[in-house]
Formats: sequence, structure tokens, C-alpha cells
Amino acid sequence: MYVRNAWYVACTADEIAAAPLGRTICGNRMVLFRSEGGAVSALEDFCPHRGAPLSLGSVRADGRIVCGYHGLVMGGDGRCVSMPGQRVRPTIRSYPALERHGFVWVWPGEKSAADPAKLHPLPWAESPEWTYAGGLFHVKCDYRLMIDNLMDLTHETYVHATSIGQPEIEEAAPATRVEGDSAITSRFMSNISAPPFWRAALRGNHLADDVPVDRWQICRFTPPSHVMIEVGVAHTGHGGHDAPAERKVSSVVVDFITPETDTSIWYFWGMARSFNVEDKALTETIRAGQAAIFGEDVGILEAQQRNLSEQPSRHLMRLNIDMGGFEARRILERLVAEEQNDLLKA
Amino acid sequence: MYVRNAWYVACTADEIAAAPLGRTICGNRMVLFRSEGGAVSALEDFCPHRGAPLSLGSVRADGRIVCGYHGLVMGGDGRCVSMPGQRVRPTIRSYPALERHGFVWVWPGEKSAADPAKLHPLPWAESPEWTYAGGLFHVKCDYRLMIDNLMDLTHETYVHATSIGQPEIEEAAPATRVEGDSAITSRFMSNISAPPFWRAALRGNHLADDVPVDRWQICRFTPPSHVMIEVGVAHTGHGGHDAPAERKVSSVVVDFITPETDTSIWYFWGMARSFNVEDKALTETIRAGQAAIFGEDVGILEAQQRNLSEQPSRHLMRLNIDMGGFEARRILERLVAEEQNDLLKA
Amino acid sequence: MYVRNAWYVACTADEIAAAPLGRTICGNRMVLFRSEGGAVSALEDFCPHRGAPLSLGSVRADGRIVCGYHGLVMGGDGRCVSMPGQRVRPTIRSYPALERHGFVWVWPGEKSAADPAKLHPLPWAESPEWTYAGGLFHVKCDYRLMIDNLMDLTHETYVHATSIGQPEIEEAAPATRVEGDSAITSRFMSNISAPPFWRAALRGNHLADDVPVDRWQICRFTPPSHVMIEVGVAHTGHGGHDAPAERKVSSVVVDFITPETDTSIWYFWGMARSFNVEDKALTETIRAGQAAIFGEDVGILEAQQRNLSEQPSRHLMRLNIDMGGFEARRILERLVAEEQNDLLKA
Repeated sequence: MYVRNAWYVACTADEIAAAPLGRTICGNRMVLFRSEGGAVSALEDFCPHRGAPLSLGSVRADGRIVCGYHGLVMGGDGRCVSMPGQRVRPTIRSYPALERHGFVWVWPGEKSAADPAKLHPLPWAESPEWTYAGGLFHVKCDYRLMIDNLMDLTHETYVHATSIGQPEIEEAAPATRVEGDSAITSRFMSNISAPPFWRAALRGNHLADDVPVDRWQICRFTPPSHVMIEVGVAHTGHGGHDAPAERKVSSVVVDFITPETDTSIWYFWGMARSFNVEDKALTETIRAGQAAIFGEDVGILEAQQRNLSEQPSRHLMRLNIDMGGFEARRILERLVAEEQNDLLKA
Repeated sequence: MYVRNAWYVACTADEIAAAPLGRTICGNRMVLFRSEGGAVSALEDFCPHRGAPLSLGSVRADGRIVCGYHGLVMGGDGRCVSMPGQRVRPTIRSYPALERHGFVWVWPGEKSAADPAKLHPLPWAESPEWTYAGGLFHVKCDYRLMIDNLMDLTHETYVHATSIGQPEIEEAAPATRVEGDSAITSRFMSNISAPPFWRAALRGNHLADDVPVDRWQICRFTPPSHVMIEVGVAHTGHGGHDAPAERKVSSVVVDFITPETDTSIWYFWGMARSFNVEDKALTETIRAGQAAIFGEDVGILEAQQRNLSEQPSRHLMRLNIDMGGFEARRILERLVAEEQNDLLKA
Repeated sequence: MYVRNAWYVACTADEIAAAPLGRTICGNRMVLFRSEGGAVSALEDFCPHRGAPLSLGSVRADGRIVCGYHGLVMGGDGRCVSMPGQRVRPTIRSYPALERHGFVWVWPGEKSAADPAKLHPLPWAESPEWTYAGGLFHVKCDYRLMIDNLMDLTHETYVHATSIGQPEIEEAAPATRVEGDSAITSRFMSNISAPPFWRAALRGNHLADDVPVDRWQICRFTPPSHVMIEVGVAHTGHGGHDAPAERKVSSVVVDFITPETDTSIWYFWGMARSFNVEDKALTETIRAGQAAIFGEDVGILEAQQRNLSEQPSRHLMRLNIDMGGFEARRILERLVAEEQNDLLKA
């Protein structure tokens, strides 16, 4: 169950720097590469001649992809350009694709609906006052389990006890609201001590790390499967989330969750921040820390998926802490139903 | 096809000393741990909140198990004790469990029928005149193939040719009888030379190892899937199985065969002996030897299972040597049919 | 879809020198061994007693195979010779088998039709003026994909660009014809420079390697799944394929493609040559080079198979270059249909 008419992150720009890349996105096996003029292209990863994966081939200087088996040449639009001694010109499926902010985005649904304007706005990516670093995990779980995970940070207390978790998270009741197609879960903690990750961030920002802080987590789900989380701490008594810049450290946890199959995902995670943006060592420290923390979720999500796959009809609970994920699922169900209605009408 | 209303060995006491253990018993995925007061508990390994395995969690000082994902706390009886900011109290399935003789036993069937008195009697485990050591193998075969294996020791001649096998085993015809729910296969060999394993045992018992011996093997199957084998050798001319203690070495091969799935088992093997019980080095020598010998069966049983799974309708032979396993299967079929009748009546 | 009534290569003679070998041929799990008098035998790999694979057993000095579980003894004809304390004499399926030219050949179909005269003629194997060396790969693809591969050497330009590939192959149009049950695809290139593999062969034959050559490739498919390819180069201007021996190097690429399952094969590849046959170092150089080159096909064939398995109804193209494989498939389809008709009549 995925939204089809949406932009998904398929890979980072780096991943197709040197060679074409085969990757399955929302059940579609694609080859991703830079075609004519350096533009990104996404084709089905299936040579129309004898079915070899085009991702095993190579990209010519002119941006055409050459099948590694018999040399059929395809353009970035999925049309065959030349074929050994033949004049037939078969075409394979192409997917709308574009490059933005270091990522390659693909649209698995109706081509005619693929509007670049529908790309998720990423203001931090367009401003020199911000910096970003992240990574990619392959996780064997339904993408909605990852949305649940990110929309309910209560789990930090248990899964990430040694880094960002602290009992106060669990004690602060989250509030969930829906705004259009977005679900937002917020949690505010006052006058607490900062956990290790945030103490390091305070020091990185030249702020005292041993004084009480206010902490916030504002998780925002937007379709098809993005979760952005505003997180931060401010020295207590200066306005919390609204404290002046010199009293707080804050950042945006960026999560692009791209379904591979019904039970696996490409999980692009990262963090954007607006403080000390020139400090490359801090960037790397944060990236490495985030990799370690997010890696702690992988095992539990995969085990949860195995349990749910074994007992698919089992009813789960919906607590207050689960409302963010629940609302996200309701939005997704509505959008998928709308897409199916559109298909029936067409 | 298993008997459900019976005590099975789920794990050794050591296995749950430090952390909860996830293990599938007769098709039921369980978490095993020490709960209130140190008592052993077995719950389904599925957090009622979001389905994460409880075995990834931890046990609190008070014996409650805490889910490693969102911190739901469960008692050893399967009732939720606390949940992040909620007053609902879900319950999950619990299995009767008890600890005895260093093992944790669970009852996968009807709770009301779980009577500790139905535990298999293990007199050697209760007497200071005996000692025991053993180990655990995971084997990918139907548990009945392991029962067949143990009820027909003819295979020692071929599978264990260098340790306990000898041609005389094959030459001595076994006799099988049924006593109530037990099947017993006996084999007696007279005036033979002892094979390497028994020569070492004779030496360990300060007996000559280079004189003719009488040898016996009395295999006893009892439901649901236990096989105890009285084995020993006595210097020839002193009464064989009934020889006085100073003329023989004897022991009990202990086999608890716990089905995991229809084609895999947890195989708890060991040996109990009543001679030189203080000699820890001898205990370890025997344990290591038994590990090596029983390991030789694993490959052949798994290959046999693969062949049978490929040709499930193929008819196998039933020779005289196979009668022990055959009678054990007849007992199991009768008990399973009785359980199913009881379920229909209920 | 395989021809059943045909001789397939099951293994090399070396593979059964020391112990029995378990191998699946055309979906039949067999044990291959040297039985009475050193003759090769092929039985189903299933002990009639309890189903253990006979290939885990051992072969006695008299050529009988002994089951490694309980010691049942089978003759090379599939009849039980002795069994622990029994007089029953079960029989298991045996397959016609013979040894020829260093290979063990088996006939998975009707025994009565198994005529040694139907063995594929291998004149190079019977002549002292030729030498042969080769190897074995296990490849996870339908055997017909490997036939396609070998009947269309256009792929050399792309898959083997650094060894035997060259653009001229693609530029020379192949011609395909059918002769009885054989399909033949030929390709001739004139006045080209020799690629690395052939330059080495020219040097190995004491011929200049830096002069223009004529090159030929004559691929011949014969059922059930053999492809022999006459390949060679001659110094240009001396008659090409018909040049005198001192002006050319030529050899036969030998491919026995034995189906294991519907999507996996045992691929016996090699090369027979009639020049410098005493030069063992050259033999080994060629064998190692061929292993490297043929290994390049494995990845692409397995990836092609995965793509085709995912989209089984997808229609592939049939270009001029594909006619050899296409005609081979037509021959196979006709032979399989004839076999099925014969079965219906019987």
C-alpha cells in the first residue's frame, strides 16, 4: 500500500556518479543514471532485447545507456537508440525523475501527474545558513513501521537510552494534530538535563552543557513517506522553542522513507542544522552519532516486521503515543483510495 | 504432529540467567525469562502494543519484562503492569512453565491440564550419587526422525564407526516391546571388545579396558519426545547388565527432543552416570565426546529430512531394527488423536 | 522443459574418483559412483530404508554403495544387496550411465531407449592429435539462456570486451541454418586485427600476432543441450577457415549444458585444440583464460534469469543475432512434444 503519484527519493546524487544503479522503488525495479546533458533518468531495469538488467551495463559519454549483454543502446527517455544490425526501436518504461538537493527523486505513478512543483519543500537545503549530512540504511520492514517509529519518539527512552533517550520524554504527553495532508506530533519537556547527544551539540555551539534545558520534538509527516522532525534544546528560562538563537541548539531530523517492497525500505536519514554550519568536524560527529542511533532501530523494526508477518491478522493497540503514526496511516489510506478511484474513472 | 499437553524442555536454566530468551516451541514463539521471585515464565514473544518481540527487551529487578521498543511492562503471567501514560491492561498468552533439574519446562497445550506431576521422572537428577552433563543442538529435522535415530542404535556402526560403533551392534538383534505409553528397544551383546568410548569409561572407572565385555543398550521412549537410553559394559562373566557395580560402567543417555517447527528441533542431549561422580575432568571428557558423536548425526538427519521433504508421499521401509521408532510413532499418533477428540468434545 | 531421452554430462570422471557424488540432473537427484568393475552407476540418491541420501555413504572395495546411516548395501543396478538382519531386497531407480572421454553421462528418460550410440560424437576426444581442458560452473539460469548465449557471440563485444570481444563481431552479420536436429550459426570476419585471446593463441602456435587476420565462429547446437563452436583466426589472404594449418589457429569450444532444475545448470565448458597439443603450459593458459572469460557470463545470465522470473509473461525480442538460439528452442520444443506424444501412446 503506497501512494504512487508522488516524488520519492530513489538515491543520492553520489550513488550514480560513476555507474548506473539498479534499485527497486515501490515495487518497480529501476535503473538510475545520468543521461543526456547530465540529467537524471529512471528506466525499468530490463533490456527489451533479452531481459538483462540495464544496470549491469554502462553509460556512454553521450548519456545513453548500453546493455552489458548485447549492446542495445537506450536513451534516457526509454527509447532504443541503436541495436545490433536492426532498425526496430523498442521502448521501455521510463519514470519521471529529477535531481534536487543532492537527491534523485522518482515518480512511480502516472507520468502526466509528475509535477516538479509537488516536490517536498526543503528550505534548509536551499539556504547557505544551513548544512546537511546523512546516510542510507536498507531495512526489512513495511515503510509505515518506520513512520510509526519516527512519529512516536517515546521509543527513544528505551531504544536509545544511552544517547538521546531520557525518562522525561515518556513523561511528557505528546499532542497530535492533522493539518491538511500532514500529521504533526509535538512534545515539549521543561527544565530537564540534556542527554549526551544534545550536550555535545550544546558544546558544539559553544553553550554550557551542564545547565537545565527545555527540549522539544515536533514530528511532521507529509506524504508519501517523509518525516521531518524539529528537535532542539534551549537553556531553561529563555523561551524554549522560541528562545533566541544564542540560547539554543536546534536542527531538523530529515527522514525520507522510500518503500522498496511491501516489507522493505530504503531509509535516507540525516540532519540539517543552522548553527556552526562551517564546522565540518561537527558535521561528521553528528552524522556518525546519528548513524549509530538510527542503527539501533533497525534490529527492532525488522524483528517487529517478522512478528507481524507471522500474525498478519493480529490487532495492535493504539495508545496516545501512537496517534502520530495512526493519523499518518489515515492520510495514506485516504490518498491511496483517491488514487484508486481516479484509476477506475480513467 | 505433536502432543500438545505435555512438558517439553524449552531451555536450560543457564540460558535465561542474564537476559530473556526468544525460542519457538512446538510452533509457538515464546519469550522465556525469570519473573517475580525468580520463577520461570513463558509468554508469547509479541508485545501487545505494537508487536515487537519481548525477547529484545530486558527484565527488571522485580522480574517484570520491559518491551525494548516503547517500554510496556509485562508480568510473568502475561498481564500488562504499566504502559506509557495509559490505563489499559492488555494480556498476552502465557504458557505454564516450571524449572526442574536445571531445565525450564513449558506446556504448550491446555493450561488447565498442566500438572507438574506429569513431568517425566528423572531419578538420576535427584540423587547425589549421579552426575549429569549435556548440551544443545538445533537440528533441521522432524522430531520423529531423531526419535527413530535414538530408538535404533544400529546406526552407530555406520555413523559413529570410530567412537561407539562396532559391527556387533548390527549383529545383535534388538527386541522391542510396548509398556503403556512407553516403547522399549533392548539389545544385548556378549563377549565383545569395548569400543573407544567405553574403553575410556572403563579406565575412568579404574577398570581394565582390554578384556572382553558384555554390552547393553536399553532405549526407552516416553511421550512427548523423550528418549532415555541405559547403556553400559561389564567385564564378561559377571552378569552383564546385572553385574556388580565394581565390574561395570553404565550410564543413561538423556535425550529431550523438543519440536521447534514441523521440520526442526531443539535437541537437548546429555549423559547421567553413577560412577566417579566427583571427577569433573571425566565429566567434561564424556560431554565433549558425546558432543562430537551426536554431532555426527546432525548432517545425516538434516539430509534425510531434505530427501523426505522432497518426496513426502514416498513409502519408507520398516525393518526389525525400526520397530522402536515405529512403536513410538504409534503411541504419538494415538495420543494426538485423543487430544483432538478432547478438543472436539470441549 | 527438457528432452528426457538423451545423454547428459553428469560429472567428470575426476569428481567420482574418491567418493560418491550427489547431483541433481534434469530435476532428478542422483548419486553417481563407480560400482562393480569400476563401471559408473547412477541411482536415485535416496536409501529405500529410511530415505537418507546414499551420497553421504561410501563405496566398498567391491563397488557396492553402503548407506551412511544404517548400512544398507546397494549394487550399481539399484538393487539392495544386503540389509541389517533382513531378507527383503528393495530396489531403487537406476539411470543408464556410461563413461566416455573423461565424462560421466546419464540418461534421465526411458531406460529402454538409452543407446550408447546416441552419445554425441566427439572426434577431438578420440584423436591423439587433439587435446582438451575445461572446467565446471554452476549457474542459476534456465539452460536455454546459456544456449542463447553461446549461439549468439555478439555478446562477446560487450561482455568480453577485454579478451575475445571486438566491434567487428557485431558488424559481421551471422547466418543461421537448421540441419536435421542441429542449429548452426556462422559468422565470418575478414581482415581484422586479432583480439588478445587469439593473439596469445597465434603466439602459442609460433605465428605472427600483429598482422591482419580472418576470424570465424561456427556455433552448432545439438540436442539435448550441447553447443560446439568452431573458432579460429588465419592470417588474412590464406583462405580464412580453409587456410592451411601453418597459417591458422583454430579450436573447438565445447559446452555441455546440463539442466539441474528449471532455473539452474551444471555448465561443463572447455576447449579442444589441434595445435601444440603437447604444450601443457599453453593448455593451462587457455583453460585459465577461458575460465575467466566464461565467468564473465555467469553474473549476467543469473541477473537475466532473475528479471525473467519476475516477469515471466514478458515478451522478448528476436533479432537476427538471436536466430541461433531461436532455432535451438524450436528443435527442443519439437523433441519434447514428440517425447510427450510417445508417453501418451505408451
